[in-house]
Amino acid sequence: MSTTESLQSATVSTKANVYFDGKCVSHSLTLADGSKKSVGVILPSTLTFSTGAPEIMEGTGGRCEYLLSGSSEWVASGAGEKFSVPGKSSFQIRVSGEPYSYICHFG
Amino acid sequence: MSTTESLQSATVSTKANVYFDGKCVSHSLTLADGSKKSVGVILPSTLTFSTGAPEIMEGTGGRCEYLLSGSSEWVASGAGEKFSVPGKSSFQIRVSGEPYSYICHFG
Repeated sequence: MSTTESLQSATVSTKANVYFDGKCVSHSLTLADGSKKSVGVILPSTLTFSTGAPEIMEGTGGRCEYLLSGSSEWVASGAGEKFSVPGKSSFQIRVSGEPYSYICHFG
Repeated sequence: MSTTESLQSATVSTKANVYFDGKCVSHSLTLADGSKKSVGVILPSTLTFSTGAPEIMEGTGGRCEYLLSGSSEWVASGAGEKFSVPGKSSFQIRVSGEPYSYICHFG
């Protein structure tokens, strides 16, 4: 898969979202078609996120491993790769070494 | 001054810029007029940045204090406030408490 290096025609919220004392930082944005996304990065750590709407995580730099709720298998994912998380669920993500940059696609 | 809550018609680079072990994280973007900016955040810390081109820092959340090269006076700046940094120079910035979100205007 190719890596999505940029997003066009975005309206970007200028105040950062800071989670877990800065281990995860993102900026929210809306594209011209109304779709809502965020661009963010996870620093080396193991974090648990809860979802409201379903999410697709798309790697744009670095690597991570993720563990979906109810699964016992950690799966590796990197730049140019995606994984889906159901709504009203949770997942763990762990990063070591290079930060994991991502686009989160909501809904 | 009012706070710039969003930037429109932006082309956003999806890979985060991570500086100082994540104490500063930003995403680069280009607006429709070709102007180059970044949206970022600084976590509690005292950091020294060097400039290539001149920069204008515009706060969008939280507060900081900055010390320009050659100055002996720390100056407070917060959401809705701007400060200018000359090109080929440097400045220190310190943040305590809430993260300082900013837009950096280049050139």
